[in-house]
Amino acid sequence: MKITTIISDSNPLLKMVRGLQSRSQREKSGLFLIEGTKLVAEALSKSIRIKDVLVSQTFLQERLKELQAASITELSVVDDQRFSQLVTTEGPCGIVAIARIPRCNEGDLFACQAPLVVIAEAIQDPGNLGTMIRTALAANASGMILTKGTVDRFNPKVVRAAAGALFVMPIVAEIASAQALDLVNKHGLTVIACEPTAQTLYWETDMTGPTALVFGNEGQGFSQPILTQSAQTVAIPMNDCSESLNVAIAAGVILFGAAEQRFKAAFSTGRR
Amino acid sequence: MKITTIISDSNPLLKMVRGLQSRSQREKSGLFLIEGTKLVAEALSKSIRIKDVLVSQTFLQERLKELQAASITELSVVDDQRFSQLVTTEGPCGIVAIARIPRCNEGDLFACQAPLVVIAEAIQDPGNLGTMIRTALAANASGMILTKGTVDRFNPKVVRAAAGALFVMPIVAEIASAQALDLVNKHGLTVIACEPTAQTLYWETDMTGPTALVFGNEGQGFSQPILTQSAQTVAIPMNDCSESLNVAIAAGVILFGAAEQRFKAAFSTGRR
Repeated sequence: MKITTIISDSNPLLKMVRGLQSRSQREKSGLFLIEGTKLVAEALSKSIRIKDVLVSQTFLQERLKELQAASITELSVVDDQRFSQLVTTEGPCGIVAIARIPRCNEGDLFACQAPLVVIAEAIQDPGNLGTMIRTALAANASGMILTKGTVDRFNPKVVRAAAGALFVMPIVAEIASAQALDLVNKHGLTVIACEPTAQTLYWETDMTGPTALVFGNEGQGFSQPILTQSAQTVAIPMNDCSESLNVAIAAGVILFGAAEQRFKAAFSTGRR
Repeated sequence: MKITTIISDSNPLLKMVRGLQSRSQREKSGLFLIEGTKLVAEALSKSIRIKDVLVSQTFLQERLKELQAASITELSVVDDQRFSQLVTTEGPCGIVAIARIPRCNEGDLFACQAPLVVIAEAIQDPGNLGTMIRTALAANASGMILTKGTVDRFNPKVVRAAAGALFVMPIVAEIASAQALDLVNKHGLTVIACEPTAQTLYWETDMTGPTALVFGNEGQGFSQPILTQSAQTVAIPMNDCSESLNVAIAAGVILFGAAEQRFKAAFSTGRR
């Protein structure tokens, strides 16, 4: 393994890591950051192209064997203090990789018989978006559409909260809500907007066919195109003392509601 | 309204707010902090006893009418810069209240016909615990038990993530897992531990009777008492590419699974 020790603050790799905290730099370079051993290992196993790996001095000393086993052939090392200033993870981390942003074709979202696509409309909080991606993958969603105004999915906090799901989930981003609707309509999906005041409960609605579930901005809810063009709205029934649910929780509840319906339908018809 | 302007860093109220960031001070004083207009209003409407209210200069200028309407009769004001150093909320906030920690009797958790109690075992992340409390209330859980090792529920980050649910949810905290099991067993609850490797899926298990749902630590999972003494374990089926779900999401999925069963049972038997 080739190991380069970085001793200068103006080292180009350090500059690049610092730069990749910003969305504009990520978009310009087509690169993003992956922080932490577990996520870097996950990225390697999911064929994400890693360009550079940077570790802290302590991490190198304590975990060299793991790095060798992970088929990393080249890395850079920097002292612990400088390293901690480079990452957004609180607490010990010790490793950051620079990776190529994976490409996704629109068709990947609809590549199965009954697609289940999540439209995230202008979700602001990185933790919420990351958790939604992680949850959507777990619930067998086939893809996601992130409308304009949604936080960048390659923001390090989103990457962390997505816990590896970002490396495999087909995602189309940065399109207007009206375009997102056109796209799912073109593929024959029924659009269901999840909305606290809807009259129909989510378990009363059939989600076994080609379905797009829309979840809105944390504060503002849905845009006009979603409000007027969704085929249905569904609600999660809540205790009278509750004002609302966190949007990632709402997505989890309804996505697994869909997963349960699909599981049961597959068993009853022998489609599975 | 009586308004006191604070000009000294050594003012006792500022010292108290700073102190209440720490768990030991909260436990010693029986007080905790509530940050942000919405939460303070929520606390007032839920009969939480507010001892003091502190606002920033800008907040006072812009929102005096709201404060008067909220039946706050006395408050202190401090310059914006000092204020921002006192709170944990990122971004604008402008108001923090010092409130009495509400008391809860053990019996409050079991006060309905078929209690649904959440046992949170050593949950570490404040955002996760707060979201679990918010979600449990929404799903009509009757109470929660937080075992020793769980983050303090009056940590400002938990208070924020719980979005007001903390003010109404009956919670027993700081008891050992074995004691938590004794408590729910004494009240005749069936203990169901939620565990990714369980053979039974959550929707295959009847949760309409008196039920305790256990969710484990983010990294370590369950303690020995929970593993050996739970009546059942249930899993959420996941995509093969997924390693796990966030614990608050898992709680949301299973709690609303229980809510759905209970809703349907109530309708079919006319118990509602």
